[in-house]
Amino acid sequence: MEHVKHCSSCRTLSEKTICNICANDIRDDTQLCIVETPTDIHAIEQSGVYKGKYFVLSGYLSPIDGIGATELGLDELEQKLRDQNVEEIILATNATVEGEVTAHYISNMAKQFDIQITRIAHGIPIGGELEYADINTIAHALSGRKNYD
Amino acid sequence: MEHVKHCSSCRTLSEKTICNICANDIRDDTQLCIVETPTDIHAIEQSGVYKGKYFVLSGYLSPIDGIGATELGLDELEQKLRDQNVEEIILATNATVEGEVTAHYISNMAKQFDIQITRIAHGIPIGGELEYADINTIAHALSGRKNYD
Repeated sequence: MEHVKHCSSCRTLSEKTICNICANDIRDDTQLCIVETPTDIHAIEQSGVYKGKYFVLSGYLSPIDGIGATELGLDELEQKLRDQNVEEIILATNATVEGEVTAHYISNMAKQFDIQITRIAHGIPIGGELEYADINTIAHALSGRKNYD
Repeated sequence: MEHVKHCSSCRTLSEKTICNICANDIRDDTQLCIVETPTDIHAIEQSGVYKGKYFVLSGYLSPIDGIGATELGLDELEQKLRDQNVEEIILATNATVEGEVTAHYISNMAKQFDIQITRIAHGIPIGGELEYADINTIAHALSGRKNYD
């Protein structure tokens, strides 16, 4: 454990200066998925559908706890968007109030760059039944409905 | 309970021939939300965001149990789409294998009409955290991501 540090590129936990995902040239540099914790990277990797890179906030905006843009590494993120060839950032913060606020803040910051800003979908979880979903999730599932093809 | 029957328009359970929602002229006739059970109507009504009408299948396609298009009232639905001024059907069947198959079948049937066919969104439930979501839900949340504004 004493060798564990933060990846200097994406801020995830790693025993190397640059983590395995950041060091992997096969992964798509143009997509950057922004998550709250290293565990979220693990969850997304398990799904096997994402081939881009990550940026770990290690938390969410919480001024009352003294966690602001600096603590979340948003300066580093801004620098990354300025210097690197990122074409899309995917806001994958949690679907909680704090996660939404953090996503909104990052989106505002990223608007100065010519990149696509997307947010992961919210709605009924796969395998889930409508009658057991809470009203906010149902409201989002309806307002976020998509053309079926 | 002896007076409970199926609404002759939307097939939900009701003590009247035409249920309160179908009889309500203020509700939008051009939107038709297709659900599996009357309980789903209750769940959607609780969310307060939907002002259209409903159609209740009372189940899902399950040939092995002898439940086909006739049992789900799809002939009635087809007639409804032909005769009435429906502009959009919202497929709100469950996010289960059976619900997806049923949605697919109805979508194929409805293609003959000039109407919009939509499906409720699937993804991370509101208040949910990414690390606790299953891999299929994460895969859907990523592939179904939307532009953030």
